[in-house]
Amino acid sequence: MIKDEILELLNTDPIPAARLCSLFTDTNAVDIAELFKDAGKEKSPQIFRLLPKNVAADVFSYIEPDEQHILIKALSDSEISDIMNGLFTDDAADLIEEMPADVVNRLLLGTNPQKRKIINQILQYPEDSAGSIMTTEYVELGEDATVQDAFEHIRETGINKKTIYTSYVIKPDRLLVGIVTAKKLMLAGLDDKIGALMNTNFIFAGTTDDQEQVAALFKKYGLLSMPIVDKDQHLVGIVTVDDVVQVIEEENTEDFEKMGALHPSEEPYLRTGVFRLAGNRIPWLLFLMLSATITGSIITGFEDALAVLPVLVAFIPMLMDTAGNAGTQTSTLIIRGMALQEIRFQHLAKVIWKEIRVAILCGLALGLVNFARIYFMNGRNAVLSLAVTLSLLITILLAKAIGCVLPIAAKKLTLDPAIMAAPVITTIVDGASLAVYFSVARLLFRL
Amino acid sequence: MIKDEILELLNTDPIPAARLCSLFTDTNAVDIAELFKDAGKEKSPQIFRLLPKNVAADVFSYIEPDEQHILIKALSDSEISDIMNGLFTDDAADLIEEMPADVVNRLLLGTNPQKRKIINQILQYPEDSAGSIMTTEYVELGEDATVQDAFEHIRETGINKKTIYTSYVIKPDRLLVGIVTAKKLMLAGLDDKIGALMNTNFIFAGTTDDQEQVAALFKKYGLLSMPIVDKDQHLVGIVTVDDVVQVIEEENTEDFEKMGALHPSEEPYLRTGVFRLAGNRIPWLLFLMLSATITGSIITGFEDALAVLPVLVAFIPMLMDTAGNAGTQTSTLIIRGMALQEIRFQHLAKVIWKEIRVAILCGLALGLVNFARIYFMNGRNAVLSLAVTLSLLITILLAKAIGCVLPIAAKKLTLDPAIMAAPVITTIVDGASLAVYFSVARLLFRL
Repeated sequence: MIKDEILELLNTDPIPAARLCSLFTDTNAVDIAELFKDAGKEKSPQIFRLLPKNVAADVFSYIEPDEQHILIKALSDSEISDIMNGLFTDDAADLIEEMPADVVNRLLLGTNPQKRKIINQILQYPEDSAGSIMTTEYVELGEDATVQDAFEHIRETGINKKTIYTSYVIKPDRLLVGIVTAKKLMLAGLDDKIGALMNTNFIFAGTTDDQEQVAALFKKYGLLSMPIVDKDQHLVGIVTVDDVVQVIEEENTEDFEKMGALHPSEEPYLRTGVFRLAGNRIPWLLFLMLSATITGSIITGFEDALAVLPVLVAFIPMLMDTAGNAGTQTSTLIIRGMALQEIRFQHLAKVIWKEIRVAILCGLALGLVNFARIYFMNGRNAVLSLAVTLSLLITILLAKAIGCVLPIAAKKLTLDPAIMAAPVITTIVDGASLAVYFSVARLLFRL
Repeated sequence: MIKDEILELLNTDPIPAARLCSLFTDTNAVDIAELFKDAGKEKSPQIFRLLPKNVAADVFSYIEPDEQHILIKALSDSEISDIMNGLFTDDAADLIEEMPADVVNRLLLGTNPQKRKIINQILQYPEDSAGSIMTTEYVELGEDATVQDAFEHIRETGINKKTIYTSYVIKPDRLLVGIVTAKKLMLAGLDDKIGALMNTNFIFAGTTDDQEQVAALFKKYGLLSMPIVDKDQHLVGIVTVDDVVQVIEEENTEDFEKMGALHPSEEPYLRTGVFRLAGNRIPWLLFLMLSATITGSIITGFEDALAVLPVLVAFIPMLMDTAGNAGTQTSTLIIRGMALQEIRFQHLAKVIWKEIRVAILCGLALGLVNFARIYFMNGRNAVLSLAVTLSLLITILLAKAIGCVLPIAAKKLTLDPAIMAAPVITTIVDGASLAVYFSVARLLFRL
């Protein structure tokens, strides 16, 4: 592969610059960016200077933040200026956000004033809003332009646009009135007017809309890009599908983390420090640990029963674990269904009814196995087997009910349903399962 | 909104067909498809017949399977034929897969023979392979064509292509030699040769490659489409980013389900039957229930200790829950990191060392709170407080170690790391925590 050849050439002394430069032209910017991973302080500016001018900024945008930092410190002011003016505004804003304070000033000083203004604007939008992920390099057209005009405009300015596959049609005051795809332009006659070709019933979002909402629209309509407007419907930027794919993965990661009793973090695991990692975990662990003491006190309340029948203790882990798992299964499906907007509040009754029937089926299957196991392994004690099995049945029913009601209720209370996942559900149903267990045992054994 | 107006008109008697037809032209196919949700047996063929010819197949591809089934049963053979010949091959193949046997025959009979052959081919690729999600409507060009030729070709055939934003350059024997984007075409001179413009170092996948791998390449390189080739590097289809976004969500859903002790299912929750739902849950519940009996037998092994010091039982839930949560946190991060290809086997030592330090921090924080709580709430019994706290510390350390080693080991054994998530980890660390707890208690209380 080309990448191996590049690596070999980089280790040659002296570096064959001309050969490398031509190889770089044929290589994807993402792959070139990977070369900086192990290049280190000395080599990385050297490699960067070999890059053809027109790809340097593009490659830079794909380099990991740590290596970007190393590189910036080694580059001259004019080289930094070239990068900043070559980056798309969304990538430039990301860079400013990622870099430590000592570098940010140099970066902004190197940016031309107009772009600096836009970057500052993007940085001011709320975190995870459409405005914070948009970029401003788009093709804009007037309604009166012809297809011929549009092609000429794209030919002149397209090289620096994030996408040329959708053009945005605006009034002189920047009011967005329509969009027209390159496909439509290519299939139309050269004299056709943009105003007649454009689609006026287009999908858009506002600058302060949540990025999750933007991603949902991309998924629903299979979009490649989307215009972002201010509150007066003026075009201020666009979001493209490659960035939305990142947003989707970020949002999924956030859900995984919340469902795993973690405070969500945007940093990749390997780049996160030990204190930060611990800080993301301790609050949830503490909260759940203290909640679990309630479950402990349920046991204490039944100490008399345990004293008479110590064998009861042996089934506590099985009951607690099964309750937790049964609840986790349900809450996982419900949370995921809500994240994908398949399950909504209006489905609550339908979901509960479904879960009750599923719980009965699961309870019967597990109960049968459980009864047989206890009966034959605990001296054919039918009352004991029955007590445990009955508790198991009731517990599964409870766990499934709690597992579907809590996430939906959380959503209704505008909380994130993902927090009602395995850890919280487990803690709650653990307590419930023990209360059920000891009550059933007391009843059956007349303790 | 237009959609409300359409709904109102549909309820007018007689239906104002001309007005509706013009509204449909302005409405997104996805939104029109939603109208079929509540339309029912009688209305849905009526609505479908009002659709302009050129959007009918497109709208059909967005209708949910249940409603597609209702519609197909109400349509004539020639209407079905129009749909099948109008659908992209990937959507046609999906439809064949989704529909019950009684309908499939009619669908295939209505398809022209050439397309039927391609559909059958797509259906034969392994589930979740690149071949199974590709489509065959792409723009192909020869190396000798000029940009002018390319534009003409696109103008003639583009309307029926899944994308015209990348053209695929092939030899007469269909060997894929390069790709050229519409952007490049639009910025080039009309006499330029495709062979000189094309990018020969392009990203592609084979028909049998896993769709997850295809999605990873889209994410890494920010692609809009990707060529799929057979083992001889001949072009057989393309995958587009809108379908990849669906794949990404499917793969995430699968991970959520596996991590929630569920057998993964591709059907949305609300469309899945009760028996199927129960069937996806019972095997895991049973397996985990039986595994938890081992934990129960650990307690039985320490019955003598419990008889002397019954208060020990009260801390079992707290220890088990905390162990499970501590392990879940780690395994969640590791599994997600591996899914995003950030964490690999080579990082094992680094991850373990990180988790040990995080475990110590978490253990100290929780231990402190725990010691104070038990000491002041259990008659200032220092030995008891120490026994529980020490067990908690060791348990957290163990849980975090198990939580990072098991998913990475699973991956190394080519198992899906996602199965080493909360439920399995919890079951394992529950047992470990009790063994630690009773051993520590025996030691400190000299039982």
